[in-house]
Amino acid sequence: MDNVNDFKWEYRMKVNELVEKIGKVGFQGVELEKASNIIIKMKKEGVKIFLTFTSNMVTSGLRGFFAQLINIKMADVIVTTVGGLEEDIMKAIGEKFIIGDFNIDDIELYEKGVNRVGNLFIKNESYAKFEDMIMPMLEKLYDKKKRWPVSELLKEIGLMIDDENSILFQAAKNNVPIFCPAITDGSFGFHLFMFQQKHPDFVVDVVKDFANILFSTSHDERKGVISLGGGVSKHHAIFSCLLNGGMNYAVYMTTARHFSGSMSGATTKEAKSWGKVKDDADEATVIGDVSITFPIAMIKALETLKKEGVIE
Amino acid sequence: MDNVNDFKWEYRMKVNELVEKIGKVGFQGVELEKASNIIIKMKKEGVKIFLTFTSNMVTSGLRGFFAQLINIKMADVIVTTVGGLEEDIMKAIGEKFIIGDFNIDDIELYEKGVNRVGNLFIKNESYAKFEDMIMPMLEKLYDKKKRWPVSELLKEIGLMIDDENSILFQAAKNNVPIFCPAITDGSFGFHLFMFQQKHPDFVVDVVKDFANILFSTSHDERKGVISLGGGVSKHHAIFSCLLNGGMNYAVYMTTARHFSGSMSGATTKEAKSWGKVKDDADEATVIGDVSITFPIAMIKALETLKKEGVIE
Amino acid sequence: MDNVNDFKWEYRMKVNELVEKIGKVGFQGVELEKASNIIIKMKKEGVKIFLTFTSNMVTSGLRGFFAQLINIKMADVIVTTVGGLEEDIMKAIGEKFIIGDFNIDDIELYEKGVNRVGNLFIKNESYAKFEDMIMPMLEKLYDKKKRWPVSELLKEIGLMIDDENSILFQAAKNNVPIFCPAITDGSFGFHLFMFQQKHPDFVVDVVKDFANILFSTSHDERKGVISLGGGVSKHHAIFSCLLNGGMNYAVYMTTARHFSGSMSGATTKEAKSWGKVKDDADEATVIGDVSITFPIAMIKALETLKKEGVIE
Amino acid sequence: MDNVNDFKWEYRMKVNELVEKIGKVGFQGVELEKASNIIIKMKKEGVKIFLTFTSNMVTSGLRGFFAQLINIKMADVIVTTVGGLEEDIMKAIGEKFIIGDFNIDDIELYEKGVNRVGNLFIKNESYAKFEDMIMPMLEKLYDKKKRWPVSELLKEIGLMIDDENSILFQAAKNNVPIFCPAITDGSFGFHLFMFQQKHPDFVVDVVKDFANILFSTSHDERKGVISLGGGVSKHHAIFSCLLNGGMNYAVYMTTARHFSGSMSGATTKEAKSWGKVKDDADEATVIGDVSITFPIAMIKALETLKKEGVIE
Repeated sequence: MDNVNDFKWEYRMKVNELVEKIGKVGFQGVELEKASNIIIKMKKEGVKIFLTFTSNMVTSGLRGFFAQLINIKMADVIVTTVGGLEEDIMKAIGEKFIIGDFNIDDIELYEKGVNRVGNLFIKNESYAKFEDMIMPMLEKLYDKKKRWPVSELLKEIGLMIDDENSILFQAAKNNVPIFCPAITDGSFGFHLFMFQQKHPDFVVDVVKDFANILFSTSHDERKGVISLGGGVSKHHAIFSCLLNGGMNYAVYMTTARHFSGSMSGATTKEAKSWGKVKDDADEATVIGDVSITFPIAMIKALETLKKEGVIE
Repeated sequence: MDNVNDFKWEYRMKVNELVEKIGKVGFQGVELEKASNIIIKMKKEGVKIFLTFTSNMVTSGLRGFFAQLINIKMADVIVTTVGGLEEDIMKAIGEKFIIGDFNIDDIELYEKGVNRVGNLFIKNESYAKFEDMIMPMLEKLYDKKKRWPVSELLKEIGLMIDDENSILFQAAKNNVPIFCPAITDGSFGFHLFMFQQKHPDFVVDVVKDFANILFSTSHDERKGVISLGGGVSKHHAIFSCLLNGGMNYAVYMTTARHFSGSMSGATTKEAKSWGKVKDDADEATVIGDVSITFPIAMIKALETLKKEGVIE
Repeated sequence: MDNVNDFKWEYRMKVNELVEKIGKVGFQGVELEKASNIIIKMKKEGVKIFLTFTSNMVTSGLRGFFAQLINIKMADVIVTTVGGLEEDIMKAIGEKFIIGDFNIDDIELYEKGVNRVGNLFIKNESYAKFEDMIMPMLEKLYDKKKRWPVSELLKEIGLMIDDENSILFQAAKNNVPIFCPAITDGSFGFHLFMFQQKHPDFVVDVVKDFANILFSTSHDERKGVISLGGGVSKHHAIFSCLLNGGMNYAVYMTTARHFSGSMSGATTKEAKSWGKVKDDADEATVIGDVSITFPIAMIKALETLKKEGVIE
Repeated sequence: MDNVNDFKWEYRMKVNELVEKIGKVGFQGVELEKASNIIIKMKKEGVKIFLTFTSNMVTSGLRGFFAQLINIKMADVIVTTVGGLEEDIMKAIGEKFIIGDFNIDDIELYEKGVNRVGNLFIKNESYAKFEDMIMPMLEKLYDKKKRWPVSELLKEIGLMIDDENSILFQAAKNNVPIFCPAITDGSFGFHLFMFQQKHPDFVVDVVKDFANILFSTSHDERKGVISLGGGVSKHHAIFSCLLNGGMNYAVYMTTARHFSGSMSGATTKEAKSWGKVKDDADEATVIGDVSITFPIAMIKALETLKKEGVIE
């Protein structure tokens, strides 16, 4: 076992040096370096990487980072919720989100047509522009076929977008499927409903998409998950892999805790009882806000992988 | 404004007395009594009550309480996740869940075929029995029609169950719709997939079910939500009501916090910026594990409502 | 192991019935019933009970409950922080604290001379009245002797108070020592400093008080702790008992979590590595706000103990 | 107001670039950059900086960083708890702490004489060596005088230590006072007690040390606090400055939350109601484990200050 090392700052410190040092500080610093090392292993061993995140992370600037990660082949399968996909499209058509404040008069915001997500603000206009964008897209999809598994529908949308920083764009370009089991739980759901009112034979086939996520990997393939936040995104990735023998690697980054028995707070350790994570898997759970923990852990991994020529 | 009162125990204290007293203690005790009073108002004013909960709460003994609440007309619409519905069926056919321990060797559990949800245990056998039960049910449904909105499918299943303590049973009996937007995210999803392999024209129509939740209430109707835990259940209820003018009453009970901008941790205050909760709505957020906070707040409400003859 | 039981409400439910039922619900409900049962055992076996709490709990209405518990012999030793003792005195002289709001304009409060503790408010006047009260008390103490161990000083103050709901009063009356290692960390510290400016030979002897807490129990005596919240109160109780062979029973109730390695979040399990809690001790950690969890767990214990004639 | 920016990794990223970028990501990333900028302002404007931390942070490798910060004049006053000071001395005499695991058999650890602090381990031997070291130090102090205010006693100890990475050493060398109001709450308290048994006229004067912290700054001087974790260290710094007109700058970094009304979780906003933080003060609260958040925020500040020639 390693000893705790006194942390010392040196001028012009790089992120990878930082991570190596906080890995010897203790507490979550140790878990963060462990997470970073597991990501490095996943990539080097060529395991299939499932990256899951919640909508608020797409509200945040992590959105561009997710797109970049897909483009440099750090994610093979994406699982997320629909709100983030809506916002990815809004941003792709030029909408700006604002850095606001946690402590603000929400009724005043409401009166100004501004919606709050933590300390970030989204204008009602952005939702209006999303609507203008999505309806013609659905028409095009409908012309192709009537019954759409979610991930196939999302890929078609990605192909209609032109923004390097877009998750949908990069996923479509790089053949990375995006799974979104609760596809109707947002503004997009409302537009799908409106569209179906006009075209009653239009169907979004969630059951077929379960087959798609199941067949996106196999029992023999080595698998890993990087799960950011909790909820249905996290569960869908690990549950579909459970059916394929479980994850060989698991990194959970979250603020949720396990004491209430929630899925979101369930640890990698708990996942082992289910076989969602293999009993001998390398795993790390980092407690903290992913707007801080994820870029740091991932950059340490990327720096190492680049230096060793594993990624470009 | 009220003063803080010194709490004093008196022999044979009733739950409603307890809640009145902790409402004058401070901190979350105050919020809990407020939540209780809002529930009383909701019922007395005849608002449409949306009750949302996550799967782990059905793993727990709250399952029977939810069924009871549906039966005594304390919930008009249910929104939840699929894992809980699976477990509701397991329990309806006699499977027992075990009170275990948070700190246990998960690999040992795995080897014994036991799955852990916090400090509760579910045996693999229970999942096997669920499978035996669900497949013939799907056959019956398929004989009726090929395209099933989720809530209609769940109602049919409820009608095939016979257990007073079952959520699905009581909901079906009392005409309370159960919405479950991420219907494939669990064992049930796997069985739906298997079934669709055999019957490719079998479709679960999530888009139609969005219409169903939208039309389960109206813009003019007064609405309230009791949201236990976070995630898609919480969001789906408040989002669908946003489209109908927002909630008049909102009670959130959760352990998630708002500092990471997550949906699960978003407060009733944040919901007002969206119009998910009306700007003049009565609202309370109680931070704590619902296995403790929910029964207490709800019992206080039930005792008052019963005493005043509002419920039987 | 027990099974999970479906929770059912029955009209006129008592608190002890509630606790028995949530003990079969799962998650923190289970831990809460366990805590309750450990408190019952502690009392029945006549172990020496250390009760620790933080200042904010005395701001709250738990203050009267702590006084009651001391009076009915449910606490043999108190460990706390000085802010709470100041507020105990304020309340004893008739000052009222107000139930306010977590979300409020703090600058406006400041301008009104109101101080916020979560959702509770304390007026500046209450501090002024405390000052008027405490200075003559210190004069009287100084007349008796110059060098005061903290707990002896607090006992003298308790004897000068006349309020059944006061912690200091009941502790003095019942010969229950109050330990407060950080005695200067508050308004009282400022008054002690002012007093010492006038009387340089006035000394508060914290080292002697360490002897007092050490000798408040013995290696052979059976010991238990009920620790509410974290910080120095919690640590001082368990550390002093570590030197006496460790606790036989431990109940921790807190919102702090263990992932950052903090004292406040340290579990009863971690305490066993130190010998602060004996390796075979009965122990429970309940996560949640004590304004809710503590009265419930304690009342269940009191109801049982009263019924069995252990307490009056 | 700024817009959210898409985060992009660039090869060989430096820590200051990282912080600038996550400051545009959202959520706690925004708060972290704000904290960093406030630290820069504090230093540039020459305000008196109070740095507070809890013992577990000295268990961790942050200990060496604190020592470095004192040495480069980034902290003018230290407030902490005694456990950390004990461990600073242990490390100064060569004791090594081990990076262990949160999930481990604590009874086995106990049997091996190993004490756990989160995922860090301290051997019993280290405590034994601390004892061997501290007793002769106390003899030397006693020879000088009989009555010791805490911070003066700690300075003398610091002068007897020779370790560049020691907090006590650097503080003594740089004339930075260390305040520790609960000086007896740990192993050191036990040794003080043993010493006083032999030398009954030996007194640790905590009241005099309250004067010392009060006079360590003045009403006219501009003041700032960097508070890591909660508890008595945090409160003592802000309370003593309240008496001097309040803080002009405040950075809180913690995992504790405000919903229970605890001191540890109290926000900079709440502090304004008290006047602990001035109403127009620059302030930031960063939620997360300080083993990650503090080095990052501080390094960004140090890089800027060094580049601009403010620090060497």
